[in-house]
Amino acid sequence: MDETRKDGAVIAPDRAPLVPVARTRGARMAVLVGPQQGAPGFVTRRFTLAPGGRIPAHRHPAIEHEQVVIRGEMVLTMDGADHVVRAGDAVFLPAGCAHAYANLGDAEVEFICVIPHTPGYETEWLEDPPEGAHTG
Amino acid sequence: MDETRKDGAVIAPDRAPLVPVARTRGARMAVLVGPQQGAPGFVTRRFTLAPGGRIPAHRHPAIEHEQVVIRGEMVLTMDGADHVVRAGDAVFLPAGCAHAYANLGDAEVEFICVIPHTPGYETEWLEDPPEGAHTG
Repeated sequence: MDETRKDGAVIAPDRAPLVPVARTRGARMAVLVGPQQGAPGFVTRRFTLAPGGRIPAHRHPAIEHEQVVIRGEMVLTMDGADHVVRAGDAVFLPAGCAHAYANLGDAEVEFICVIPHTPGYETEWLEDPPEGAHTG
Repeated sequence: MDETRKDGAVIAPDRAPLVPVARTRGARMAVLVGPQQGAPGFVTRRFTLAPGGRIPAHRHPAIEHEQVVIRGEMVLTMDGADHVVRAGDAVFLPAGCAHAYANLGDAEVEFICVIPHTPGYETEWLEDPPEGAHTG
């Protein structure tokens, strides 16, 4: 066995607590797998979006997202078009695609979002933060 | 807008049907997001493992996995050590790490597994297929 190789890891939810996401209302995020485990290529994150929650429109010029909705239902706006997405749906958001999320229901939404591990993570916000947004 | 840029996509479950995985008993897999959408860097797949199901030990010399368990509970064996993983847990399997899965319960397990998009996907099987394995 190569002495330099990385170890496998199981990350239980209490090892990856959700934290509020700035400029959003009701979104929380946890990094599940990424640089902390020595993962070389991509980062797996968990998001939740509370009832009434909103992530305003933004885009990442150089970063794509691959997402899977785990629980609930929300409205995903991609390049100005609304899509109702729900548990079981997957989403591809290419680099440069403007996207926003709104939970119009009364159940929390949970989704997984995978991004490349790169120093080039930039976000261009296209809307002001919604009323009541987290400012941290 | 760059005319060559890719479009965003929502992939509903019926667009990504699960298919049996060869050399396993009771495992099915669907590619959710990947080359079909023009995703450049990584591939998001969904796995299910039926009660009594088993994916025998194998490793990928050049490919890591990032996984999130969505439903159920199973035994994940990593480099010979057993770990009970359940809904909410995430897993990092570095390249070269031997891994196997066994569903010892009576509920189906579902997990997401993300891999790099690379031509270097190789699998070294370390066990024979279990009794009743899919041979397709």
